[in-house]
Amino acid sequence: MSDLLRPETTHDLAGDAATLLGVLREAPPLTHCITNAVVTGFTANVLLSLGAAPAMVDIVDEAGMFAGIASGMLINLGTPTPEQRAAAVEAVAGAAASGTPWVLDPVAIGALPVRTALAHQLVGHRPTAIRGNASEILALAGLSVGGRGVDATDSTDSAADAALSLARSTGGVVAVSGPVDLITDGERVLRVSNGHELLTRVTGGGCALGAVMAAFLGAARATTHDALSAVASASLVYTIAAERAAAVSAGPGSFAVALLDALAAVGADDIRAAARVEGGAL
Amino acid sequence: MSDLLRPETTHDLAGDAATLLGVLREAPPLTHCITNAVVTGFTANVLLSLGAAPAMVDIVDEAGMFAGIASGMLINLGTPTPEQRAAAVEAVAGAAASGTPWVLDPVAIGALPVRTALAHQLVGHRPTAIRGNASEILALAGLSVGGRGVDATDSTDSAADAALSLARSTGGVVAVSGPVDLITDGERVLRVSNGHELLTRVTGGGCALGAVMAAFLGAARATTHDALSAVASASLVYTIAAERAAAVSAGPGSFAVALLDALAAVGADDIRAAARVEGGAL
Amino acid sequence: MSDLLRPETTHDLAGDAATLLGVLREAPPLTHCITNAVVTGFTANVLLSLGAAPAMVDIVDEAGMFAGIASGMLINLGTPTPEQRAAAVEAVAGAAASGTPWVLDPVAIGALPVRTALAHQLVGHRPTAIRGNASEILALAGLSVGGRGVDATDSTDSAADAALSLARSTGGVVAVSGPVDLITDGERVLRVSNGHELLTRVTGGGCALGAVMAAFLGAARATTHDALSAVASASLVYTIAAERAAAVSAGPGSFAVALLDALAAVGADDIRAAARVEGGAL
Repeated sequence: MSDLLRPETTHDLAGDAATLLGVLREAPPLTHCITNAVVTGFTANVLLSLGAAPAMVDIVDEAGMFAGIASGMLINLGTPTPEQRAAAVEAVAGAAASGTPWVLDPVAIGALPVRTALAHQLVGHRPTAIRGNASEILALAGLSVGGRGVDATDSTDSAADAALSLARSTGGVVAVSGPVDLITDGERVLRVSNGHELLTRVTGGGCALGAVMAAFLGAARATTHDALSAVASASLVYTIAAERAAAVSAGPGSFAVALLDALAAVGADDIRAAARVEGGAL
Repeated sequence: MSDLLRPETTHDLAGDAATLLGVLREAPPLTHCITNAVVTGFTANVLLSLGAAPAMVDIVDEAGMFAGIASGMLINLGTPTPEQRAAAVEAVAGAAASGTPWVLDPVAIGALPVRTALAHQLVGHRPTAIRGNASEILALAGLSVGGRGVDATDSTDSAADAALSLARSTGGVVAVSGPVDLITDGERVLRVSNGHELLTRVTGGGCALGAVMAAFLGAARATTHDALSAVASASLVYTIAAERAAAVSAGPGSFAVALLDALAAVGADDIRAAARVEGGAL
Repeated sequence: MSDLLRPETTHDLAGDAATLLGVLREAPPLTHCITNAVVTGFTANVLLSLGAAPAMVDIVDEAGMFAGIASGMLINLGTPTPEQRAAAVEAVAGAAASGTPWVLDPVAIGALPVRTALAHQLVGHRPTAIRGNASEILALAGLSVGGRGVDATDSTDSAADAALSLARSTGGVVAVSGPVDLITDGERVLRVSNGHELLTRVTGGGCALGAVMAAFLGAARATTHDALSAVASASLVYTIAAERAAAVSAGPGSFAVALLDALAAVGADDIRAAARVEGGAL
């Protein structure tokens, strides 16, 4: 994709991220998560550390109403029980009715039939953003049967066309997570090079980022920042916190703990100093 | 409420807590938790660190029987799936039949209809103790529609009348968690001023306290301490451990880890030295 | 059992474990876990730290297919919802059809009827390995009604005959966890004396070992190592990591974090230096 970038139109993503982080901490967005059983505690802790207000309301007859109250919402398909599937459908309808921005994370779709069918159904409801690894984005765009599980088996670059295609067909933002995060709204592409390999050694390292995107989308509602800016800001803040955490960690266990500390400590100046972003209009 | 306190009848809560903590560690109470998916691991770790024996038995046809075997029980309504709702009803009947003390934590009731209906149903079965933040206690007493989620949007003081009213109508103890914890049996009010703001930055910071109360209620069965003393002792030990943890933490992630270490390390002398308690008869 | 050991046939378990750990890290085995809600995040983190690739696919219509794709599988009965019970049955059939090795962890069976019936049903499908504490192994062999919960109330030695009997009747390996881990295939018995008491103060300390066994069984498929060697290697690597973690921990919280770091750091030389193993043919 590098030939498509227009450096002259480079987005001031670090500035956006610094602003939105301040907004988020000033008025914590109620962030509604329907997410998988493996990462639900870690996801809530990531949101609390950052300064957002998590709430996991994943049962039928509550999820839809709550989607209307929430500032932002995540639907993550990691362990989609029948109850969660029904709650997700209800929540997406509730979000649509009230204009709540929402993120779809199509975990491990491709070979696994139940979540794959649900992901395709939900994508038809036009998520504000879609976050996945390259394999998941390729599978959601119909260009691959996906990886063997939750790992990315395709590179971020290989999913760039799929991401653009999905962004254009849904009208939303698509974020491909990997060593470099690629975020696009179908017209602009941003690449965030921050991050650390240890994020792949902690369960929920990617899933929690989807929740952070929902929180930033919630915070952005009080601003003039668009969804591309909010989603890419989430990626930037999260991956900069990961770098800070890795610098003080002895392994995956202490990294996960330090990531929470870093999410609470990272500030506007840190973001401006550490950001490694490329991008602009196609 | 301060005008209602009778300093001359001040309860020696630090002494009670020190004694009960020793009893708990000597004969770990089997603490049965039906709790939400977000905090179940953290809750079990809090109980294990303290010295209690957690068991999460939240399926139909086992929960009721297990309630009879357990020393104490927690019913937390944070993510009440249909299976958990049925298991909770079964467990409460089992606890009643065998005299097992139990704690109800009506997480986020008020606006959310499923858990609110269930909380009102369960409160009719007279929990030994009810623990919630001010918004939840107000909602359970019928005096508010509750907060927007799991956060307290009302102050502890604002819920004092609701707590007294609930304690009198149920015959149980009511604990309102906040910067100051208020614990009442309808005749006496205790206030615990220990604690730390970081408890609100860790998911399960409040939910796990409900489980600790169930463990202390279980331990107290072998003693002459009443439910008020057991519940307030749990609050005191837990919040003193939180203070110790905060003193060695760099943020919410390391605080959660240090809290578990502190719960294992805190002893009778620490409790007597650190306790900040007021209270007595109304 | 010490009279039954033949020192002259002592197994070079440390060598096997060092080799298998290298194989596992070179080609991370996809490790399919249907496990309980309390420990699912910790279990995934243990596998990721070690170098394996966890995937928790516990819903009907996906679990069976995924069992065929996976390198190894764990069925843990800690919180067996109806959906998980059906998924477990489906997964065991899928594993059988494709030759995927699998581990059964019969958590807290004995007095609790639902999981006990399911454990007996699943054991009839001949798990590659069974892991439990002494009380659970006794209950599975029909020699005890089990403990009062997840704690072992019987000693490892008391379960040696039950373990041998189960191993012979199922044709699989049986591992009894305790201060000394006993692992047998019905013809040979290995005893691993490594480990630390803090493993019992962390929820999932035992459950995650079952997942590590599934990962080692998956890794062993590319080698000539048999199931006894793989299961005992898992026990050895895990308990040596626990010793390293305990040496740098201040309590149960920091121990759990340090265990993840140690699982990522432990190498072949560490294993050869620290192994405390006895065993051989009966």
